[in-house]
Amino acid sequence: MDSTERITDRLTARALLLDTQHAAVDRRAAFVIPDGTVYLDGNSLGALPRAVPDAVADVTTRQWGQRLIRSWNESDWWSAPERVGNRIGELVGAGAGQLVVTDSTSTNLFKVFVAVSRMDPGRTRVLIDPDSFPTDLYVLDSAARLTGLTVEQVHPDRAADRIAEIGDELALVVYSSVDYRTGELWDLAAITQAAHRVGAFALWDLCHSAGAIDVRLDDDGADFAVGCGYKYLNGGPGAPAWIYVRTEHQERFHNPIAGWHGHARPFGMERDYDPAPSISRARSGTGPMLSLLSLEAALTAYDGLSMADVRARSLSLTGFFIECLGGLGIDLPLATPAQDGRRGSQISLRHPEAYAVVQALMVRGVIGDFREPDLIRLGFAPLYVSHAEALAAAEHLSHVLRDKEFESEGLARRATVT
Amino acid sequence: MDSTERITDRLTARALLLDTQHAAVDRRAAFVIPDGTVYLDGNSLGALPRAVPDAVADVTTRQWGQRLIRSWNESDWWSAPERVGNRIGELVGAGAGQLVVTDSTSTNLFKVFVAVSRMDPGRTRVLIDPDSFPTDLYVLDSAARLTGLTVEQVHPDRAADRIAEIGDELALVVYSSVDYRTGELWDLAAITQAAHRVGAFALWDLCHSAGAIDVRLDDDGADFAVGCGYKYLNGGPGAPAWIYVRTEHQERFHNPIAGWHGHARPFGMERDYDPAPSISRARSGTGPMLSLLSLEAALTAYDGLSMADVRARSLSLTGFFIECLGGLGIDLPLATPAQDGRRGSQISLRHPEAYAVVQALMVRGVIGDFREPDLIRLGFAPLYVSHAEALAAAEHLSHVLRDKEFESEGLARRATVT
Repeated sequence: MDSTERITDRLTARALLLDTQHAAVDRRAAFVIPDGTVYLDGNSLGALPRAVPDAVADVTTRQWGQRLIRSWNESDWWSAPERVGNRIGELVGAGAGQLVVTDSTSTNLFKVFVAVSRMDPGRTRVLIDPDSFPTDLYVLDSAARLTGLTVEQVHPDRAADRIAEIGDELALVVYSSVDYRTGELWDLAAITQAAHRVGAFALWDLCHSAGAIDVRLDDDGADFAVGCGYKYLNGGPGAPAWIYVRTEHQERFHNPIAGWHGHARPFGMERDYDPAPSISRARSGTGPMLSLLSLEAALTAYDGLSMADVRARSLSLTGFFIECLGGLGIDLPLATPAQDGRRGSQISLRHPEAYAVVQALMVRGVIGDFREPDLIRLGFAPLYVSHAEALAAAEHLSHVLRDKEFESEGLARRATVT
Repeated sequence: MDSTERITDRLTARALLLDTQHAAVDRRAAFVIPDGTVYLDGNSLGALPRAVPDAVADVTTRQWGQRLIRSWNESDWWSAPERVGNRIGELVGAGAGQLVVTDSTSTNLFKVFVAVSRMDPGRTRVLIDPDSFPTDLYVLDSAARLTGLTVEQVHPDRAADRIAEIGDELALVVYSSVDYRTGELWDLAAITQAAHRVGAFALWDLCHSAGAIDVRLDDDGADFAVGCGYKYLNGGPGAPAWIYVRTEHQERFHNPIAGWHGHARPFGMERDYDPAPSISRARSGTGPMLSLLSLEAALTAYDGLSMADVRARSLSLTGFFIECLGGLGIDLPLATPAQDGRRGSQISLRHPEAYAVVQALMVRGVIGDFREPDLIRLGFAPLYVSHAEALAAAEHLSHVLRDKEFESEGLARRATVT
């Protein structure tokens, strides 16, 4: 037995041990993972939960097809945004009545930006991470032009200092819990405390956290939060997003897209808008029920799980993958911090031919994704990715790099989707 | 044979004749209509097209479940908003590249209101129908507060005069093609001409027209339009909505919800927003693919149909229903104009106990809906409702009224859904 074989044997044994240790979170049986696939892109589109196809078929053929308009009442489609919102709330540390599933993340960001701009006219400045997912930057710039807010891009590790400098002109800080490219986890509780010290609000973007990180919105003082439904929450492509408005801010939260679903009496068909005295005021128009109820079915995969355990398995997976990289002699620069407390649920590696490397991995059945300019991004969805797969992915990556498989023809760059 | 029997026989024969005359539009076989149901609520939630369940199952189990993230490219989920938009465009007289499926009607209205407010700062006034579906009023009021626009509610039959009086301060007029309660069809081409004479824009709300009326957006000069996907277009509950921006206005159309899906290079992940040089700039965040692709499958029911024929069948259905009311001696006041040119695809009748009458009809398998304060609203979806059913509905209504079935217990008022 040579040294490589010994290392592989050792890592294999370790994967087995870790999968056993974290078996409580193993929901693999609740998901469809195609044969021969190691799926490390659940941070872009979560895998299909087995509960979804039947649930969606019931919505189409029975609820819609047979019961027709009556299902708005009979199947309580009307309250699904709040019902599913409360379930997501349990996964991100939000008590009931503060989270509603509606629209897209972009639209929900817009609602918060405009609502905040009206809360205290003396506060006109907003801080945002320049490395935010671009839609956060775009929508904030647009909302700022509309409302008179002034935007300043400040990296999270400088945020607390800058917040103190700006002081009482500050209206809002906008930070993502996990950086979508590097996978770095930021201490939003600390940034939020700094914001609160000067009387400002904090908006958390949890797109790359919800369902993988043990977020504590209520306990950590978040004022607002948004997130999507199609990454770790596995709601399906373009599943609707959600918005959190802390109870104490709801009365002052004026949704600029004041659609009839946010009205206190939506069926009164009144001429004047009177916002619902609840999180329902964050709704706008009619939501996409097939996609929304797919998300509801998907969330059953989390039934009985504690987010602390989910987080522990996530950290174990990414930590073990880093261990495998070392063991197999893969020396690509890590864009993701190696320390547990600073890591989300993904590992990003730098490579000048990152796009082609991702394509070569896909040929081998390992699905990750590429992010500009040089990132190989591998997400470890804690409910269905195993430590054995983390090792397999590292081994495939080792072969791709050793044999320069990324130089094959047909792996040229083209557009991909987040 | 008594007189009632003779009348019924005559109407039955007439229904048969009209169904034969308008058979070209009969797509009943393409829809699921539950046994024993006369479905006259397709103007609220269209019936299930038979093509939908398999199409949605393919999206969930194969595209999402098996192909995972790759389907964004392989199944071209990315371009679905424009692809489905172009198909809807064919049904409302819009040439390709002007219509995109995205968000809800409320959100799309908001985009137009804010975009128009920035087009010509000298024009600050907006006219809207006080009898608009409430969300139009609510969202316009909200957008007006945000942008400085001034809103005036003017009934459509007074619109042309008022437009001329206001003149060059007018920015926009907002009118619905069909009144959602009374079913009255307005001459939006004439209102639009009046708006254009003073240099203002016209926004058409086509929620209650698209798929039933032969709308001609391009030919009749509409500047902007919005509509939902779940009424006559049969996309399913909460199917995403659509927005039309005439080609010549697209370059000046600045979508306030400047999400990454509207960017010229969405995968460039750039820090600055550069709107797509096309209707795609009206997109914001990621759309709900299950609901969107359900809508795409639903639209195949329109394949091979001319909207002129669809409109002719719709008018025949509602006209014949009025004839049945007369023949059967039902003398409830018509809220809907009897003249063909002034009628959408629904008939609304007034009754002081309208809610209970609608419930009593439902007990008999005739599904319509109630609208405040006193309207029995019956929609005639031209693709799957027959003249024979129009007669059957009138006969059921006759019995409900004659025997005062609406006074039965258990038919008390409760919330229903549009």
